[in-house]
Amino acid sequence: MAKEVTNREDNYSQWYNNLVVKADLAEQSAVRGCMVIKPYGYAIWEKMQQQLDKMFKQTGHVNAYFPLFIPKSFLSKEAEHVEGFAKECAVVTHHRLMTNPNGPGVVVDPSAKLEEELIVRPTSETIIWNTYKNWITSYRDLPILCNQWANVVRWEMRTRLFLRTAEFLWQEGHTAHATKEEAIAEAEKMINVYATFAREYMSLPVVVGKKSETERFAGALDTLCIEAMMQDGKALQAGTSHFLGQNFAKAFDVKFSSKEGTLDYVWATSWGVSTRLMGALIMAHSDNNGLVLPPKLAPIHVVMVPIFKTQEENAAIIEKMESLKKELEAKGLTVKIDNRDTVRSGFKFAEWELKGVPVRVAIGPRDLQNGTVEIARRDTLTKESMGIDGCVEHIVGLMEQIQKNIYDKAMNYRSEKTVKVDTWEEFKVKIEEGGFLLCHWDGTAETEEKIKEETKATIRCIPLDSFVCEEEGKCIYSGKPSHRRVIFARAY
Amino acid sequence: MAKEVTNREDNYSQWYNNLVVKADLAEQSAVRGCMVIKPYGYAIWEKMQQQLDKMFKQTGHVNAYFPLFIPKSFLSKEAEHVEGFAKECAVVTHHRLMTNPNGPGVVVDPSAKLEEELIVRPTSETIIWNTYKNWITSYRDLPILCNQWANVVRWEMRTRLFLRTAEFLWQEGHTAHATKEEAIAEAEKMINVYATFAREYMSLPVVVGKKSETERFAGALDTLCIEAMMQDGKALQAGTSHFLGQNFAKAFDVKFSSKEGTLDYVWATSWGVSTRLMGALIMAHSDNNGLVLPPKLAPIHVVMVPIFKTQEENAAIIEKMESLKKELEAKGLTVKIDNRDTVRSGFKFAEWELKGVPVRVAIGPRDLQNGTVEIARRDTLTKESMGIDGCVEHIVGLMEQIQKNIYDKAMNYRSEKTVKVDTWEEFKVKIEEGGFLLCHWDGTAETEEKIKEETKATIRCIPLDSFVCEEEGKCIYSGKPSHRRVIFARAY
Repeated sequence: MAKEVTNREDNYSQWYNNLVVKADLAEQSAVRGCMVIKPYGYAIWEKMQQQLDKMFKQTGHVNAYFPLFIPKSFLSKEAEHVEGFAKECAVVTHHRLMTNPNGPGVVVDPSAKLEEELIVRPTSETIIWNTYKNWITSYRDLPILCNQWANVVRWEMRTRLFLRTAEFLWQEGHTAHATKEEAIAEAEKMINVYATFAREYMSLPVVVGKKSETERFAGALDTLCIEAMMQDGKALQAGTSHFLGQNFAKAFDVKFSSKEGTLDYVWATSWGVSTRLMGALIMAHSDNNGLVLPPKLAPIHVVMVPIFKTQEENAAIIEKMESLKKELEAKGLTVKIDNRDTVRSGFKFAEWELKGVPVRVAIGPRDLQNGTVEIARRDTLTKESMGIDGCVEHIVGLMEQIQKNIYDKAMNYRSEKTVKVDTWEEFKVKIEEGGFLLCHWDGTAETEEKIKEETKATIRCIPLDSFVCEEEGKCIYSGKPSHRRVIFARAY
Repeated sequence: MAKEVTNREDNYSQWYNNLVVKADLAEQSAVRGCMVIKPYGYAIWEKMQQQLDKMFKQTGHVNAYFPLFIPKSFLSKEAEHVEGFAKECAVVTHHRLMTNPNGPGVVVDPSAKLEEELIVRPTSETIIWNTYKNWITSYRDLPILCNQWANVVRWEMRTRLFLRTAEFLWQEGHTAHATKEEAIAEAEKMINVYATFAREYMSLPVVVGKKSETERFAGALDTLCIEAMMQDGKALQAGTSHFLGQNFAKAFDVKFSSKEGTLDYVWATSWGVSTRLMGALIMAHSDNNGLVLPPKLAPIHVVMVPIFKTQEENAAIIEKMESLKKELEAKGLTVKIDNRDTVRSGFKFAEWELKGVPVRVAIGPRDLQNGTVEIARRDTLTKESMGIDGCVEHIVGLMEQIQKNIYDKAMNYRSEKTVKVDTWEEFKVKIEEGGFLLCHWDGTAETEEKIKEETKATIRCIPLDSFVCEEEGKCIYSGKPSHRRVIFARAY
């Protein structure tokens, strides 16, 4: 067990917080609820960004950048939207400081009050649709397929590193279409891009589903989501894609002349994932020794630790490692040789386990004599000794195996913790054990609300894949007829 | 001349504004002084980012992310810094909106006033050094070589797209070192990274120099800069790198125990470039037909326009173009075939010239018969016909030629407009003509200030390269002895 990291079984929440800080991913800043993303954490986020950005571009999207600030009046233009978002946000009211006339430091200059307050964007639908208004006149201007990488601020009262912070980093796609069908297809396309990313890069088995009306994005007609299960059995929403209908086009008066010559409102989608994915990645795979990173997102794939007594031994080992490093780099892997002479190899082992480096290579004097290396896998914590000659191919192969094994492990856990529940008594017992409960639901917001009140469980989604849910039954709570099961769970 | 773009010779400033908007680079937003960076403009910025990021990593730097907000009290901790920055900034005073009790819309909730106001970062030295305090205890923790890509806000009264906006995008490097020498070397290293980037990627000849005390960054002991000349003879500061001494370490009490066991303050640098580079790129190279982009930063390298009368001709031409496109893409070029049937080829030619695509390939029915293509260069506006068979290699070669030609053109212009001036009378005449005036200066802030008052010219830098300035002389204004010439110019 890594030092100073709480046991996952003893206190899951504290284990997570410890890990984030001890593995140098992020820390609290001096500003309430805002985090500092440290270089090692940011390197993982960069890998996520690069892959997602590539996938967005492959699906025809382009990047742009819209203002950080939103005029207060914009937020109330779309009625449901303001209800969902405008409450807790950072409000800019002044544009100047001045030397404090009554003491040290600076104070807000009362004469520099803004005519209209500006809101630091909690999401950008309003400012973007106000912009699209000028970009769209004809069907020839459509579709618009923009994405933006940005920071957003939501003044959360209770924050947790990566999972819920006042400021976070994300991408938000905002698209405009001539037809309802095209917009719906876009929203579906993008939730599937997220699902592919989660599964293939994060090794995270996710369910693609649709939110209930209650859980929808403020202003959306439909919200699609990917839901993952963490190792404590709780659900985590990892990404959403919204079909916005014509709501924002109507709020900002965005019309286009169609091929047929009619003047119609434009159809919209928006979709986003955030640094919350970092939280999902950590919570889904890590153990009491620290992070377990899927190779495709690991900033360092292989760490090499020399085991030596004399400086001569060390020099010979490092030389061998340098040549091995070059061979591995030629295969596209990132390799670090940890040749610090200020700490022992046991300390190094623990540190790189904590940081989740997928493969560790150790070489000692005997290995040097025998032409062998010791290879340790982070995911299984197993070690093996092998000839140095074949080890490059072996390590390359390990990356794929580890990527897959981490996925399979998470998938097995999810399968174990997913149960069909058909009585309310059983529901109340099972929900305490965590996991996904596949239950019939009568489709009403009232039932959903009562179940939440009594058990803190919410409908995570109406699954569109992963589980076969189409069947007749009776609502777990009201006993009314139901045509399909949905996923209930407690969630982050 | 591109339609609706003002002639550069008639009104340089309006020509620039027109270009930015007409070439779809950026536009004003609904928020005063904040711009929308449109997809085509953002694609150029992304290319800049990618290359700079690569160069930062090659020089040992890592990325991280620090909070958007800075507690008001932080800004006054470094005395000079607050003088230089705290004045015009966005101040967050509240964290909640509420439904307007007296009418429609939302209002600021007066009960949600922050205890301490938060400033939207105008630059991040203060919040970062407050963070570094917890990262640094020993010399083993040094150096810290962090960079962040972020948005910043400075409440400028007079804004211009890319050149001076309330919100802009930038990168800011913040490094911490054990010795003064190492920090100075870092500041020099990074200004040279910027110079290399400007010269090799932006085709922009820049002078590396040192700012006079008056023009230094608030809180720096030395500010290094790269200065470029625009096509109206005005100077534009394109990047800065600051040696901050121990000022921020002292303000935030950041000490480290040295190898020798002493407790010392840490030495600092910071350095940054911003979306202002977009302004420099546009102003330095463009002409009355539109943008002229150096191939290394062009989002599209080659545009292909089919010239046809019948649909059959078009199909045959497009087929030829598709195969040419594949060959060019295999060489690393980005190619667009403009097969719109809603506009004429003349319109397409003008549009892609406006957008600065380096090479245009046109194929008509006669070309198809003769096995030829027409190749047009954006930088020289020249056209040539050649056999389609050798044209891939030729186009690849053109990229290098264009990159170099744009640089040479800008360099020639700068050479023409750089003059040694030795009398005050001549200075007053020459400064009206624009350009760099290499003059002796007595080294005092008083003289600098007087020259600025009388002529609006400032000392752009004390050159460290590009011009031989070391010589004895007399100050252009005061007649006092001087040991080297400096660059005076009017500036953006």
